[in-house]
Amino acid sequence: MGGSHHSGLKLAEVGERGFVESIIKKLRSLGVEAGDDAAFIEVAGVKLALACDTLVWRTDIPPGMESLDVGRKAAVSCISDLAAKGARPLALLASLALPASMDVEEALKLVEGVGVGAAEYGAELLGGDTNEATEVVLSVAGLGLLEHPSIKRSGARPGDYIAATGPFGLTGAALHMALKGLKPSSEELQAKLWMALTKPRARLKEGLALASSRAASASIDSSDGLALSLHQLAEASGVGLRIDHVPVAEEAEAYAEELGLDPLSLALYGGEEYELIVAVPREKWGVATAAVEAVGGRLIKMGVATPTRGVELHVGGAPRELPRRGWEHFKPQA
Amino acid sequence: MGGSHHSGLKLAEVGERGFVESIIKKLRSLGVEAGDDAAFIEVAGVKLALACDTLVWRTDIPPGMESLDVGRKAAVSCISDLAAKGARPLALLASLALPASMDVEEALKLVEGVGVGAAEYGAELLGGDTNEATEVVLSVAGLGLLEHPSIKRSGARPGDYIAATGPFGLTGAALHMALKGLKPSSEELQAKLWMALTKPRARLKEGLALASSRAASASIDSSDGLALSLHQLAEASGVGLRIDHVPVAEEAEAYAEELGLDPLSLALYGGEEYELIVAVPREKWGVATAAVEAVGGRLIKMGVATPTRGVELHVGGAPRELPRRGWEHFKPQA
Repeated sequence: MGGSHHSGLKLAEVGERGFVESIIKKLRSLGVEAGDDAAFIEVAGVKLALACDTLVWRTDIPPGMESLDVGRKAAVSCISDLAAKGARPLALLASLALPASMDVEEALKLVEGVGVGAAEYGAELLGGDTNEATEVVLSVAGLGLLEHPSIKRSGARPGDYIAATGPFGLTGAALHMALKGLKPSSEELQAKLWMALTKPRARLKEGLALASSRAASASIDSSDGLALSLHQLAEASGVGLRIDHVPVAEEAEAYAEELGLDPLSLALYGGEEYELIVAVPREKWGVATAAVEAVGGRLIKMGVATPTRGVELHVGGAPRELPRRGWEHFKPQA
Repeated sequence: MGGSHHSGLKLAEVGERGFVESIIKKLRSLGVEAGDDAAFIEVAGVKLALACDTLVWRTDIPPGMESLDVGRKAAVSCISDLAAKGARPLALLASLALPASMDVEEALKLVEGVGVGAAEYGAELLGGDTNEATEVVLSVAGLGLLEHPSIKRSGARPGDYIAATGPFGLTGAALHMALKGLKPSSEELQAKLWMALTKPRARLKEGLALASSRAASASIDSSDGLALSLHQLAEASGVGLRIDHVPVAEEAEAYAEELGLDPLSLALYGGEEYELIVAVPREKWGVATAAVEAVGGRLIKMGVATPTRGVELHVGGAPRELPRRGWEHFKPQA
């Protein structure tokens, strides 16, 4: 491995976010606007979005998850990034780094899963690359078409409503269940949580409807966790957020009650959820909700953007600052 | 890791090519034409090419190579795939899987290297993704624009000349030198070989000139090694090849002589070289060479496509079948 002869700061010390901030700074110094869910490029008058997302089996995949679902989730995760920008996914590429000891059948299921995920959202898996590695690393790159102006992270303005396309906490509960090897008393609850974790869906219809309506001023997907995504949207937009309502999924509430957990924490810090968090100017709220409802989705109001920085939680008890915390690679998790 | 509970065929048994053939078959069953250097897609009348290429540091990078060069090579490798199809590289994304113990500075150099490689060929590094893994896996995805019809692997016809954009064997010699820890007597030779390995260049000018001239019937980059690339071009086109001349780089000849190696083997099985191997209909040979020479490149005639399958080597001694062999992941190397 490179750098073993160096003795500077390690990734473990700065964490993924510190590292990503350095990368964004470097790209900005080269004139590239980075740090959104996807990158944007205009080619011969056609507006495109590019995104990539990588799964490392050992750290990202709970025990018991099927290869096909792993491949599908890698596709969904990339498509969610395009969806958040209002881009229609067209094509995916899959790059696989795999151990030589892996079953051919399982490896093919990974690829098939990417294809299945792509097809669900109208995209095609067009090709890829294979390599040998000590662990399974599956990287999916996606190309999307912007038929309307893209929705960036940076567009929220004070006064805009902040809303989500669904409730949170299902995957937080499911991860708790999977990693602790627990079985909640209700089999139905167990199945629902496992489904949320292993068969996530991207909010593509909602993302496209919002782009088409031009009613959203900013958008981010919640794959890094609700709390962190709120912070990221606020920071990119240069605003603060006042959150008055955190929508918690019914099943997450039930699981939290049974296991004696805090449902709010499950919702705020779960991660790997693919809801969209959007900002909508007040005067466009009706247009935005109508557009999303017309495609069978919904917008749940969570709060409002403010002129002062930071994310304030006004939920149950005294208002407090929402910790900027979520899943982060490299750093030992709290 | 997935599949540990299965007991079917392992990747080590079928090798990378067997696995890739299964993937291609699966994609074909879904109506996707896969198995070229890049994938093709038309969006709103604009023709695009997509490619991705992954480096696994432990297996793909010789000891002593700088992080910046590793990042750059990953970019060049992806750009070479686009170049072989006559696509102009526009944008790259870099997905990094890195150990937490890695130096931040080294990790940033990897990213910077991708940016440097992109910029050399007129493309931009637009974004990416970071993840934690036990080893360094760097995946680069690229978007290219096809201003002319793409040059596929499958277009060679019997009678077409087979040519290369440069000689071979430099990286074969350099890898031998690096992996055995040898120093040839001439420092200049040593430096040239090391340069070829660590600072490769993609034949973009040549690829674009050939696409613009419309004089090439097929093209492939030689990153898997000359011998294998010849076989792949022949198979994709449904032709055979008769190779009368294998251009060996002067420095590879010198290294082979000093170390008592076969220069032809270095040229045929070296791999990680980014020359283009192209097929050119006889009547277009003048147009093709003029187009490539106009951008400062050259086409070296190697042989001719034939109606019978297989690649025959008519070089030094009796004609013989060229073994279908090159770098292959998963399988123990010969």
